[in-house]
Amino acid sequence: MGEAAVQPELDTFPAAKMAQTNPLPVPMGPWKITVYDQENFQGKRMEFTSACPNIMECSFDNIRSLKVECGAWVGYEHTGFCGQQFTLERGEYPRWDAWSGSNAYHIERLMSFRPICSANHKESKITVYEKDNFIGRQWELSDDYPSLQAMGWANNEVVTGHGWACYQYPGYRGYQYVLEADHHGGDYKHWREWGSHAQTCQIQSIRRIQQ
Amino acid sequence: MGEAAVQPELDTFPAAKMAQTNPLPVPMGPWKITVYDQENFQGKRMEFTSACPNIMECSFDNIRSLKVECGAWVGYEHTGFCGQQFTLERGEYPRWDAWSGSNAYHIERLMSFRPICSANHKESKITVYEKDNFIGRQWELSDDYPSLQAMGWANNEVVTGHGWACYQYPGYRGYQYVLEADHHGGDYKHWREWGSHAQTCQIQSIRRIQQ
Repeated sequence: MGEAAVQPELDTFPAAKMAQTNPLPVPMGPWKITVYDQENFQGKRMEFTSACPNIMECSFDNIRSLKVECGAWVGYEHTGFCGQQFTLERGEYPRWDAWSGSNAYHIERLMSFRPICSANHKESKITVYEKDNFIGRQWELSDDYPSLQAMGWANNEVVTGHGWACYQYPGYRGYQYVLEADHHGGDYKHWREWGSHAQTCQIQSIRRIQQ
Repeated sequence: MGEAAVQPELDTFPAAKMAQTNPLPVPMGPWKITVYDQENFQGKRMEFTSACPNIMECSFDNIRSLKVECGAWVGYEHTGFCGQQFTLERGEYPRWDAWSGSNAYHIERLMSFRPICSANHKESKITVYEKDNFIGRQWELSDDYPSLQAMGWANNEVVTGHGWACYQYPGYRGYQYVLEADHHGGDYKHWREWGSHAQTCQIQSIRRIQQ
């Protein structure tokens, strides 16, 4: 994968053309999520259409299942949008392992969540850099890559973009890092800015988040 | 998502054009995988370039870490390519949870594996049907979808194609089902044919496997 490898794609696939060739409906909001304090959509239930910084303020001790009914969301291990991040796209999550990254660091907690903005699935773009502070070679990606190593990717690269998820392991597994245009001004200068749970710069797969 | 929604894409993106606009290198083989009997690439080590139906015949009691160096592979929970399936694309898998689907049914075993053929990442296509035996509405997909529900997908649909992975939960989590052109003649008439571990027809995300 070289500098010249991806840039031609930008000329060939302008955003307007991509939209035209993708007639699938892409709802852009409003957001809606229903959470339950027991597995399999049982127990106490509450609907949200905006961010919840602390589920204990809603008399929940934890969230054990959820349904995303509209929009894309990100859940967090701790209150105040801290700790491990979990991408939550539309669908049913009957238990904790449906959204977890299946990590060694395994704590079954989802204590805060918020809606996220992401581009039309076919129009998403992200720019990745060889070194931190946006130095070195750069590539603009517009597709999902379950294995970055298959593209000749090194481990010391940093990304910037919005509505994308990066993962520690191939195939979208392990620690998840959600990158957004409206956080850090859309720019992530160093892998430590990916989240409070980021302990290494290693990412092995990257994909768009679907609204 | 309707019948008319995806077909125009086929006219606009013929395979030759997609290849031209995707100059990223896509190795098509040979295959190579290195497996270890301890986590973090420690302990006994063995390289394979073809299928292994039973790791015990190679004096391994289990595989606890692995590196995919070339091609895409699928791992299995049991010997003889049975049980849970794990997509293995190029990259490093330092422990079991790097390849697992983070399931309730959590057994840390990988007892057989084999290389799989998949199309060029940009040229992959899969046809999905509303009902089993290829009846009802059909759609041809050529992109990854982390949430099929966001596209209006129902749960009773059946797929056919090759080099694709379907998942129980959104975001490529839960049970994995690897679909290939050279198994079942590339046709899966019923969800029970997805694998010996398939217990329901529910799939909530689908993606291409990367060579």
